[in-house]
Amino acid sequence: MTTEDRIPLAALEHGTPFADRHVGPLPAELARMLDVIGVGSLEELGQSAVPDGIRERDLQLALPEPATEAEALQQLRDLARLNSPHTEMIGLGYYPTITPPVIRRNVLESPAWYTAYTPYQPEISQGRLEALLNFQTMVADLTGVPVANSSMLDEATAAAEGMTLVRRAGRAKSPRFVVDADVLPQTLAVLRTRAEPLGIEVVVADLSAGASALPDGEFFGALLAYPGASGVVRDHQAVIDEVHERGGMVVVSADLLALTVLRAPGELGADVVVGTTQRFGVPMGFGGPHAGYMAVRKGIERQLPGRLVGVSVDADGNQAYRLALQTREQHIRREKATSNICTAQVLLAVVAGMYGVYHGPAGLRAIAKRAHRMAAVLAERLRRGGVRIVHAEFFDTLVAEVPGRAAEVVRAARDGGINLRHIDDDHVGVSCDETTTREALVRVAEAFGIAGGSLAGIDELDAETDDALPTALLRTSEYMTHPVFHAHRSETSLLRYLRRLSDSDVALDRSMIPLGSCTMKLNATAEMEPITWPEFAELHPFAPAQDATGLLEIVHDLERWLAEITGYHSVSLQPNAGSQGEFAGLLAIRAYHHSRGAAARDVCLIPASAHGTNAASAVMAGLRVVVVRCDDQGNIELDHLREVVDQHRDDLAAIMITYPSTHGVYEDTVEQVCGLVHEAGGQVYVDGANLNALIGLARMGEFGSDVSHLNLHKTFCIPHGGGGPGVGPIGVREHLAPFLPNHPLQPAAGPETGVGPISAAPWGSASILPISWAYVRMMGSDGLRRATLTAVAAANYVARRLDEHFPVLYTGSGGFVAHECILDLRPLTKASGVTVDDVAKRLADYGLHAPTMSFPVAGTLMVEPTESENLAELDRFCDAMIAIKGEIDKVAGGHWPADDNPLVHAPHTAASLAGPWEHAYSRAEAAYPMGTGAPKVWPAVRRIDGARGDRNLVCSCPPLSAYEG
Amino acid sequence: MTTEDRIPLAALEHGTPFADRHVGPLPAELARMLDVIGVGSLEELGQSAVPDGIRERDLQLALPEPATEAEALQQLRDLARLNSPHTEMIGLGYYPTITPPVIRRNVLESPAWYTAYTPYQPEISQGRLEALLNFQTMVADLTGVPVANSSMLDEATAAAEGMTLVRRAGRAKSPRFVVDADVLPQTLAVLRTRAEPLGIEVVVADLSAGASALPDGEFFGALLAYPGASGVVRDHQAVIDEVHERGGMVVVSADLLALTVLRAPGELGADVVVGTTQRFGVPMGFGGPHAGYMAVRKGIERQLPGRLVGVSVDADGNQAYRLALQTREQHIRREKATSNICTAQVLLAVVAGMYGVYHGPAGLRAIAKRAHRMAAVLAERLRRGGVRIVHAEFFDTLVAEVPGRAAEVVRAARDGGINLRHIDDDHVGVSCDETTTREALVRVAEAFGIAGGSLAGIDELDAETDDALPTALLRTSEYMTHPVFHAHRSETSLLRYLRRLSDSDVALDRSMIPLGSCTMKLNATAEMEPITWPEFAELHPFAPAQDATGLLEIVHDLERWLAEITGYHSVSLQPNAGSQGEFAGLLAIRAYHHSRGAAARDVCLIPASAHGTNAASAVMAGLRVVVVRCDDQGNIELDHLREVVDQHRDDLAAIMITYPSTHGVYEDTVEQVCGLVHEAGGQVYVDGANLNALIGLARMGEFGSDVSHLNLHKTFCIPHGGGGPGVGPIGVREHLAPFLPNHPLQPAAGPETGVGPISAAPWGSASILPISWAYVRMMGSDGLRRATLTAVAAANYVARRLDEHFPVLYTGSGGFVAHECILDLRPLTKASGVTVDDVAKRLADYGLHAPTMSFPVAGTLMVEPTESENLAELDRFCDAMIAIKGEIDKVAGGHWPADDNPLVHAPHTAASLAGPWEHAYSRAEAAYPMGTGAPKVWPAVRRIDGARGDRNLVCSCPPLSAYEG
Repeated sequence: MTTEDRIPLAALEHGTPFADRHVGPLPAELARMLDVIGVGSLEELGQSAVPDGIRERDLQLALPEPATEAEALQQLRDLARLNSPHTEMIGLGYYPTITPPVIRRNVLESPAWYTAYTPYQPEISQGRLEALLNFQTMVADLTGVPVANSSMLDEATAAAEGMTLVRRAGRAKSPRFVVDADVLPQTLAVLRTRAEPLGIEVVVADLSAGASALPDGEFFGALLAYPGASGVVRDHQAVIDEVHERGGMVVVSADLLALTVLRAPGELGADVVVGTTQRFGVPMGFGGPHAGYMAVRKGIERQLPGRLVGVSVDADGNQAYRLALQTREQHIRREKATSNICTAQVLLAVVAGMYGVYHGPAGLRAIAKRAHRMAAVLAERLRRGGVRIVHAEFFDTLVAEVPGRAAEVVRAARDGGINLRHIDDDHVGVSCDETTTREALVRVAEAFGIAGGSLAGIDELDAETDDALPTALLRTSEYMTHPVFHAHRSETSLLRYLRRLSDSDVALDRSMIPLGSCTMKLNATAEMEPITWPEFAELHPFAPAQDATGLLEIVHDLERWLAEITGYHSVSLQPNAGSQGEFAGLLAIRAYHHSRGAAARDVCLIPASAHGTNAASAVMAGLRVVVVRCDDQGNIELDHLREVVDQHRDDLAAIMITYPSTHGVYEDTVEQVCGLVHEAGGQVYVDGANLNALIGLARMGEFGSDVSHLNLHKTFCIPHGGGGPGVGPIGVREHLAPFLPNHPLQPAAGPETGVGPISAAPWGSASILPISWAYVRMMGSDGLRRATLTAVAAANYVARRLDEHFPVLYTGSGGFVAHECILDLRPLTKASGVTVDDVAKRLADYGLHAPTMSFPVAGTLMVEPTESENLAELDRFCDAMIAIKGEIDKVAGGHWPADDNPLVHAPHTAASLAGPWEHAYSRAEAAYPMGTGAPKVWPAVRRIDGARGDRNLVCSCPPLSAYEG
Repeated sequence: MTTEDRIPLAALEHGTPFADRHVGPLPAELARMLDVIGVGSLEELGQSAVPDGIRERDLQLALPEPATEAEALQQLRDLARLNSPHTEMIGLGYYPTITPPVIRRNVLESPAWYTAYTPYQPEISQGRLEALLNFQTMVADLTGVPVANSSMLDEATAAAEGMTLVRRAGRAKSPRFVVDADVLPQTLAVLRTRAEPLGIEVVVADLSAGASALPDGEFFGALLAYPGASGVVRDHQAVIDEVHERGGMVVVSADLLALTVLRAPGELGADVVVGTTQRFGVPMGFGGPHAGYMAVRKGIERQLPGRLVGVSVDADGNQAYRLALQTREQHIRREKATSNICTAQVLLAVVAGMYGVYHGPAGLRAIAKRAHRMAAVLAERLRRGGVRIVHAEFFDTLVAEVPGRAAEVVRAARDGGINLRHIDDDHVGVSCDETTTREALVRVAEAFGIAGGSLAGIDELDAETDDALPTALLRTSEYMTHPVFHAHRSETSLLRYLRRLSDSDVALDRSMIPLGSCTMKLNATAEMEPITWPEFAELHPFAPAQDATGLLEIVHDLERWLAEITGYHSVSLQPNAGSQGEFAGLLAIRAYHHSRGAAARDVCLIPASAHGTNAASAVMAGLRVVVVRCDDQGNIELDHLREVVDQHRDDLAAIMITYPSTHGVYEDTVEQVCGLVHEAGGQVYVDGANLNALIGLARMGEFGSDVSHLNLHKTFCIPHGGGGPGVGPIGVREHLAPFLPNHPLQPAAGPETGVGPISAAPWGSASILPISWAYVRMMGSDGLRRATLTAVAAANYVARRLDEHFPVLYTGSGGFVAHECILDLRPLTKASGVTVDDVAKRLADYGLHAPTMSFPVAGTLMVEPTESENLAELDRFCDAMIAIKGEIDKVAGGHWPADDNPLVHAPHTAASLAGPWEHAYSRAEAAYPMGTGAPKVWPAVRRIDGARGDRNLVCSCPPLSAYEG
């Protein structure tokens, strides 16, 4: 071999760059795409599409050189080893739990589950809709109220949503809300953060004396803890009656596991029940993600925030699931919003629900009793050792009184590998759980100075110790009687159930999901593997920070890298959803104005084209929304902006814009917009939803924005999980840094001057941050830039190919779109009667997931292909759309009747082919429009009747009889 | 709560026992099953079914108390931490490699792949058949001969099979076989073990001088190493020509990665090419499992041992894959066997094939060049440091001459975290690979006493160092040109390809697989998780034993536990398939007789009902097979046995029986059989295939057997992997213990007096032993016994429910079957023309995997439901069979024509429903025989024409044009 043939070692030694695996199109494919677009190179495309004013030339981000997958995994393994999870007996809403391995592998580690999108296309989402219905049924049964939603972001935000729900659902006019002094401290803190901008006054009351301890005067509702943070189990019946009598409504924050042995809050009269399902098999993960829950009594179910799965029927009359009351989400769009929640924690709700399915009611009850017995026996052991146990009645948590010795006891326990709760100088909290061992009990007793306990001695103590649950509160009602909670007790059975459900769904492992503004890109396995490692999964969020050294290093790297990528000064990773990031960002703006004595600045400008959440978040942050008009091109009308800025020169707080715009265009007036607002004393919030079109090309922090939230679940590869988890960090310029979120239990989580916590955990969904860390670590500056430009190329390629069939509604100057494009179907609909809905459902027949429907413009489809799709998949989508256009033409041309064609009857199930066929089109035309060559992914049900389901709301598993016929 | 309600802590603290998850039927379901069977309890069933003579009453196995899943995983994590994988540069056929995470997660860790059975039902196995065809294509392309099989057990046994293949395929009469002195030492040792009983004389020749170095005299073939164990790359062309000229045939043992840059053995004239695909993404795993390979030139493809995937068409004329030349496997059944191989390493072959798909030819070539450059640069660095490198031309391995200093160098390297090969006092071997870093090069040089090398200095050295590959051997021919090796370069694309393939297959995650004598039970996730942990996966089999302390503890536990379970004295875990266990067991018997001067004892009695492999193994072990007749009830004819024992009183070596019998019956004469044989000086071999019907009830070592192989992939939960890996340890009584396998490179792997290695690695497929360890650890004695009895109950339940529809052919005294039952279809076939084949294919329409067809009795189905199926699944199977009986009746009764009914046309694809329909039965009858209520799993193709595929053998990926039309 001649020397010329030799490739230098340096060119070989790092193997295949990860970017080559992340980015879909091969060089030859990209060349073909650029050819169709009509540009010579990615660079030329960037220069043509992105306005000169904001484009940073040759931007080299200060990020580490890209690591290979193997190198990144090795680094993560090294970081994991720096973590040292202890036996966590801190309690406070986070408990060690055992994730059944079959659920870990086949849900948490299965792309079929974690790469799925929110089930807006229910016909190809029946699997996770059924899983969520199980979750709802379990929560409703355990809480004793009839309707539960399909999860909340965490317990603290669920409580806050509960507070605002009872405010708007009730009749009381008072702005006061009573909070049980024994709620979790983080819950109280989040309530306060949320209450203040809304003008709600939080009144903390020690309710240990019962109803008489309720404060005088009016209040619109109360939040009660059941059990309390102290572990005590109180009978709230009288308090609840009294609140009701005084015209208020009651939210109970309840431990779902405790409810397997305690009377349900619904039976005590609660209006709303909230909490977390973390201990149902979801690892603590240093704080998240987990599925919070909310359930409500009859009569206020239509007030529920978040997502709700309901039962309806499909076109063949078969039972089918779909998101109920979706129109409520429309409220989010504008200032009439009642909540800014637009996602859930689906993946974690599925885990929790399956934990219930696998254990069944008896299994859950045994786990609860186990935790209780451990606590009862420990309490007795401590008592006999001379330690006073503060409460006689508790579930799994006890408070021990050790005057002046608390620090010493906590330290001794820690030396024995156990973290306890240091309440104050004189009190220590100990929580038991599913994993507590008798060895731990002996060691805890030793930490209290009570030596000599033997493991066998525990049995004797056990025999002599009664349960510590109040007799009046023992649960007698049944729960989880539905067959699904009794059918899958063996691993084989659960495995098949999980497979069967996931086979109904179309996730990224089967099709591109070209959802505008949702950036469904590759969730690489190397990014995903670490999150289920025990070193990351088993950390308690309130454990000493040194237990999480490795994870905190990831947190700090990521904060730094995200700041570099966006051009901001500081980043907070606490917000555990994009909506929470918006709220946090607006709170920072508000606090900034207040700090400067400009509390009057409370107007938030929002363009007509904005994401619906924007307005909702503004309202939650105490701002008044003023809408700025857009022109025919979808761009902000500068003249109108000048006008409203002028009107609000004295009370202008901020403008919220999205860049590139929600119309998928790089508006070239963005600097002018920022300048106008700044000049009037306002702050600029740029929604980071479309950051995937900017990285490496331009930075919001540099072109005029003061604050943004990012969506790590869009741009930074955290999978959508079927509708959550999300992570919505915010980046801010230096002047806003003092107003980032912080946390009462973890000073390192934010500035002392911060706005308070907006999530329950100090770093939000900390355990999934390694995903985004790995993405940035493996892509490096060049890789990220290449991803951006390829995403833009993919969108422009699709736009070029489809424009003659479905006009592309908006383009920037030069005729380019950004990373997504809007296809206008309105003329076709007018001519043929075929709607965007029909096209979306028809795409399922083609084995594809539909794009975003009718957002931001009704009657259109918004397509975001992302950089991860290769040319074959882009073409599969385009070919399907073009074929569908041909079908629409046949309808318009009268070849097929308007009420009997493959579009209006889409999607078609396999079963529908087996029966009689009386259509104007053939079975083959229905199911195999592109021929039978490629394997077919079948929709599980036919078109679902959403309205019928909303009229007749059923949100828990229907009885088996309903499945018959 | 009163004290009476309290459950003692001791009853709660261990949570749900694993046995409750492993065993399918719930107590109430079991009660119903026992009711149908007509017994009052599992114990009564055991007493009724198992003969008194062998049943051990109240057998309590000395095993640890059962651990929960969480406890077992924690113990395994602790054991994993005792392992310390070093940077392994030992070479000798095992190399560090990077398993692409997407393949690890979606193949190695995916139940859809690992719980699949051998693809005997090709219509529901198209996914893994395509994956195996990719593997075959890759191997054939790289080796340069046209037909590769779908994997071998390992490189050493592949070489041994190559030796016997050329012996039977060639015309030479000589018993001599020449072996290149530079073959891997374990290959040579395995060849010797295999050659001796067959009367083959292995002649080792140093071929460094070329053709002239071939020994004088006749030989039937030669094995050449390419590259050699020493790393040297020699041009074998002249040697091959000379061997051919002298009437012999040539086997080349080749490194597949090296073949991406070296001329293909086929181009040099090789007849057979063998090797391993381990370094194609399969972790070393302390020796296995990996996929060996074998490929042959045109003209001898019908001599290939093992499994071969071929292309044919289905009933609709569409291309379809299936196992080709399956009739060859019939040869295994009897003494005409040419090989006893009856499995492959499918799961690992899929991984290796997908590694090829993901990297493509250019990627593989880059990996090879990387390893080569690392080695070339290292050689130059050592040379400049004054160390002589023995060979000028090498691929990735070099031998350094360090007179008297080898031990010191190896020790110094080890201090630096690197394992090198200690060849002899004066020589050290160093191998580079996909993972070698420049840091490692510097450290290796330091171990040789050459300090001062900098990382950056490597580039300079690189620039000054030529490749060390012989110019004449540089590869110029293309390989892997098929589109599949070019289409999936992005992770998204590969992920979807893997999902699409696995969606075509029916594995245990979709259906019970009731295969008689194959024991398809749960492969629990907790058992499976550890095998992909790096601490188990990244150990080199020839690394110092202390690196594998944790894994060896597992090995020793498992040896002890299996001995306890079977009643044997000693266990060897080396055999990496059941067939290899049989061979090892018979070798032990043979060696025992030889050791007592009774070499004349060479007759092996085998009942007519025996597993086919038995006779093949006996022939391989140098024994003569004499068949013992069975009576109408399927039992051994005792009179005939007496007769043949009498005839062979002087030359009787052994009897091989299966217990319970292959007819699924506990024969009550087993003790008499053992007694007769022992009394005549013979040994008793009990095939452990049906051990799942014995554990906890009876022990072969106690009731008269001297040796057995067990199938950890049947009884002890190692998944079938779609047709491998298997593990076939043997247990022996004390007098045979000195004759267990051992290993030349690892004294601890077996007795000094052993029969030599029968697998390439000291402990065979060591990395999957944690699966069986975890199973025993979590079940404990009671759990294992419960599993056995439940398996027997399930079989008897199915037998009772189906007997009136399909007569159960054999039962033991009392009318009970053991753990499986044979359904006789012959009368129905006679009446209706409907065959077992039709019923098997029809079951696919019902969404079920067929039982074993026509074994051990033609025209029957053998059903083994196992303990892991719950009543719902057992009933689903029984209901389907009963419905099929109804369909057969309709054919017999003339309702449907014999040539147009849902049975003869089964299975039906979704696509077949979409087209015109001209059948005597409806689409719904075809595809939804049980109604449309349950989700449907569709066969990917219709009935495949096997004969056509065998006539026109195509065993690599067909060109794309073949897919059209």
